[in-house]
Amino acid sequence: MNGISRIACARLRHKLMSAQDAAGLIPSGVTVGMSGFTGSGYPKAVPMALASRIEEAHAAGTPFNVRVWTGASTGPELDGALAKADGIELRLPYNSDPIAREKINRGEMEYLDMHLSQVAPMAWEGFLGKLDMAVIEVSGIRADGTLIPSSSVGNNKTWLDCADKVILEVNRWQNAALEGMHDIYYGTALPPHRVPIPLVRPDDRIGEPVLRCDPEKIVAIVETDSPDRNLPFAPPDANAQAIAGHLLEFFRHEVAKGRLPQSLLPIQSGVGNIANAVLSGLIDSPFDDMTAYTEVVQDGMIDLLEAGKLRMASATAFSLSPDKAAHINENMAFFRDRLILRPQEISNHPELVRRLGCIAMNGLIEADIYGNVNSTHIMGSRIQNGIGGSGDFARNGYISIFMTPSTAKQGKISAIVPQVSHVDHITQDVQVIVTEQGLADLRGLSPKKRADVIIANCAHPDYRDALEDYYNRAKIHSYGQQSPSLLGEALSWHQRFVETGTMRT
Amino acid sequence: MNGISRIACARLRHKLMSAQDAAGLIPSGVTVGMSGFTGSGYPKAVPMALASRIEEAHAAGTPFNVRVWTGASTGPELDGALAKADGIELRLPYNSDPIAREKINRGEMEYLDMHLSQVAPMAWEGFLGKLDMAVIEVSGIRADGTLIPSSSVGNNKTWLDCADKVILEVNRWQNAALEGMHDIYYGTALPPHRVPIPLVRPDDRIGEPVLRCDPEKIVAIVETDSPDRNLPFAPPDANAQAIAGHLLEFFRHEVAKGRLPQSLLPIQSGVGNIANAVLSGLIDSPFDDMTAYTEVVQDGMIDLLEAGKLRMASATAFSLSPDKAAHINENMAFFRDRLILRPQEISNHPELVRRLGCIAMNGLIEADIYGNVNSTHIMGSRIQNGIGGSGDFARNGYISIFMTPSTAKQGKISAIVPQVSHVDHITQDVQVIVTEQGLADLRGLSPKKRADVIIANCAHPDYRDALEDYYNRAKIHSYGQQSPSLLGEALSWHQRFVETGTMRT
Ligand SMILES: CC(C)(COP(=O)(O)OP(=O)(O)OC[C@H]1O[C@@H](n2cnc3c(N)ncnc32)[C@H](O)[C@@H]1OP(=O)(O)O)[C@@H](O)C(=O)NCCC(=O)NCCS
Ligand SMILES: CC(C)(COP(=O)(O)OP(=O)(O)OC[C@H]1O[C@@H](n2cnc3c(N)ncnc32)[C@H](O)[C@@H]1OP(=O)(O)O)[C@@H](O)C(=O)NCCC(=O)NCCS
Repeated sequence: MNGISRIACARLRHKLMSAQDAAGLIPSGVTVGMSGFTGSGYPKAVPMALASRIEEAHAAGTPFNVRVWTGASTGPELDGALAKADGIELRLPYNSDPIAREKINRGEMEYLDMHLSQVAPMAWEGFLGKLDMAVIEVSGIRADGTLIPSSSVGNNKTWLDCADKVILEVNRWQNAALEGMHDIYYGTALPPHRVPIPLVRPDDRIGEPVLRCDPEKIVAIVETDSPDRNLPFAPPDANAQAIAGHLLEFFRHEVAKGRLPQSLLPIQSGVGNIANAVLSGLIDSPFDDMTAYTEVVQDGMIDLLEAGKLRMASATAFSLSPDKAAHINENMAFFRDRLILRPQEISNHPELVRRLGCIAMNGLIEADIYGNVNSTHIMGSRIQNGIGGSGDFARNGYISIFMTPSTAKQGKISAIVPQVSHVDHITQDVQVIVTEQGLADLRGLSPKKRADVIIANCAHPDYRDALEDYYNRAKIHSYGQQSPSLLGEALSWHQRFVETGTMRT
Repeated sequence: MNGISRIACARLRHKLMSAQDAAGLIPSGVTVGMSGFTGSGYPKAVPMALASRIEEAHAAGTPFNVRVWTGASTGPELDGALAKADGIELRLPYNSDPIAREKINRGEMEYLDMHLSQVAPMAWEGFLGKLDMAVIEVSGIRADGTLIPSSSVGNNKTWLDCADKVILEVNRWQNAALEGMHDIYYGTALPPHRVPIPLVRPDDRIGEPVLRCDPEKIVAIVETDSPDRNLPFAPPDANAQAIAGHLLEFFRHEVAKGRLPQSLLPIQSGVGNIANAVLSGLIDSPFDDMTAYTEVVQDGMIDLLEAGKLRMASATAFSLSPDKAAHINENMAFFRDRLILRPQEISNHPELVRRLGCIAMNGLIEADIYGNVNSTHIMGSRIQNGIGGSGDFARNGYISIFMTPSTAKQGKISAIVPQVSHVDHITQDVQVIVTEQGLADLRGLSPKKRADVIIANCAHPDYRDALEDYYNRAKIHSYGQQSPSLLGEALSWHQRFVETGTMRT
């Protein structure tokens, strides 16, 4: 926190205005590309002012809403405030805000759930419609007018390139020493003009530390001074620790077999408590000189960096508890050399994930006995968050691992079901499933062998017999025997939950 | 067909033997990597001799089977003969042989259905187990011992590299002028040693015209003289023509909007009659100087090349009717300059498909109202062929298009259903669905908007009301409203078909 202006570019200073005035430049019906990724680097003042404006319009009986594109999830000041105001017509590509989730699941808000690597190219290709405005948080404006990114990069490059008008929030809470941490690659193109992305190691820098923006497009600059609002992580519970234990055992085994090097391969880790527990577990592991090529830097990675186990991490955003955010803000000089934030089309690019051979570790809602994974739709229809980057990493990673407790909702739901109610990751993209019960290594296994291993190793004992019973009857009565199923029963566990509040019989 | 030996390497000639003797070198229980992709370039003599040997063993009460890896589908002399002999324990990664399909669906043969781009890397990574032997058809052996590939490349490079022992079939039926058409890239590696694949246009040559093989590994060479056995294409029927018409209209529209160049982008086209009809339709289209970056070269592409509409095509295999195969064999000089056959990990590589911006066009079994696509499992459990390369292209292409008649089995089955019984392609990977009824452009649409368009544009009129009825009730009774569903009814159309022989009520 300091009082010195972060706007070093003199000819842009006259665009400074209040958040209210800036929000007044956003008309109803437009599409707005906003910054923000897993609760980091989202604009904090203009969306709130826009939400007030929308509420006033609605109170006066005037319709008012906008279409909101972001990097991924944002914070309560953006998704929460706008959803509460009924101000969002359509939201893409990822959301974890509870108010927005509720509106979506009541059918009051449209939501388009996209692969995070594909948002920028598809927007540029014109497949998503026109982008009217961009509202982007930066941590400073340099004398030459280039922009120092904030705590996430996300789709900011693309929003700044594609939008007709740009509103900047310059957040002086973010540490000035962030400058130089970012790597903004300007070599992407539309086909047939695409070329190889020249990144061969997670620590390669292939771009520039700043974002470019045509100054003519900038219609407003708003100064802010507030932290990203994130929740603290719960300490790992017994389930998370058991899952981490199985996974570390698996890594040791793969290293012993020569299928993984001693420093592993670049780690990708989803968000959440289990992912964090796995990262914590790596501190006491025999693996050294590790790297991460991932979407988000979470608490566990900061600990690994400080313990000297992780050499560096590449991501598109921070996703830190308030304590850790303050901690790295105070030690930015140390972290700036060990962290790189890139655009999400680069952090999640299939070309790079495949080349680097990432170890993909993501959470799931439910998996079925053949290894299909549902990451998004509870009971087949209710969105939880979205697919996020899980598809980018699961399909292209060296090993794709999914992790979950074997039950949800105090045991009333089995995370292993006869057939998933929605599919995000097909069996070809799921090599390992881990629950607190154990680990299923599915590589090279045909569907029936997969079922044997998943039921035996991953299912909760309370549901194992029922799964075996279903599977054994399917092997007799199924229409075909490649992936035996009973059409009348495949989704009956979900139906029972909806009707009775539990999957138990 | 000529009598001159295709074995120019003197020090290998003493390994010549009969197919029977060569098959005698394959013991029970081994894993054999065979050449062959969509009925092209598969070994024709050794598998037949192996099948006889297996039948004799079985007649004598001795167990005998092998695990068979290939490029994709082969011919009756390989999959048909070995499946008939009950000689295959496990088959990967793709099959379209009717006898093998039947064994799989009766639960008598294991089948592992894989993304075709991932077979070679996963085999090399050691994820599929050990490869004991390779049986590879080539069209000649050069004096230096390098191998001139045949009518498909598939996984041959990897099988030759990974197998302990190699049996070669040298097929002199294949035109000697094939030499020089192939481009075998030797720059792949295991992570962390992977580098960008230096291909930026479909016609770039990045490798060598021949396959390398350690001569010490070669345990047998068998000479053959027979064509690949392929079925003629049926002339396009009215449905196929209507689908092609909708698609060409869509391409014209995209060119007019500036979202596609006048020469389109590199075409990927699945196999089958509809795909062929679309290619035929392109002959009279306004698009010129087109290219193809695809898996297989089928009849329609040959016509496009000769008409001067298609500049060149890159693939991993031919898949031609007998007439066309003979035709290009006679005009090889013309075609050798316009065709490139590559390893399937390169023809289907996500890095390259995304970079080139392929227009992906594939068939489907069924799609649901939200645009999830089932390409593999009839009624959720019975395998038709396999996912093949459809996932490689659908996820990474510029536009991913799926095509199908709106009904199957004389109208008793609707290809558009409330919920697919198996998922191969998630809605994120499906931008366009086309039936003879019309085209649904799903880009930028949230699930409920997708349902409106798919039901209105793609469903057969006989099933449209029932789909609308389901969907309207789901919008009232569904657990969540992101992708409304009725768990008790979602698969009921399939169940009805299995029980009554029709989806009609
Ligand atoms: C799948 C995902 C929701 C799991 O999240 P998580 O934080 O690890 O797991 P939790 O156990 O806390 O589950 C989250 C919620 O889903 C509920 N849930 C989990 N499994 C469930 C199931 N099978 N049925 C019903 N609800 C379930 C939990 O009860 C919890 O609900 P609550 O918030 O009301 O308590 C999360 O990983 C996700 O959104 N994944 C998709 C995006 C992604 O993978 N990104 C990775 C790249 S960053
Ligand atoms: C999906 C696929 C089977 C469609 O094949 P096709 O030749 O275009 O279509 P057809 O209409 O001839 O269908 C093939 C069979 O499936 C049956 N079928 C098609 N849709 C069906 C449905 N919804 N329910 C039941 N059966 C169905 C047809 O009746 C036909 O059966 P038959 O052989 O007994 O007559 C085929 O495209 C495929 O295997 N795709 C996966 C691999 C792939 O896409 N590769 C692309 C890269 S090369």
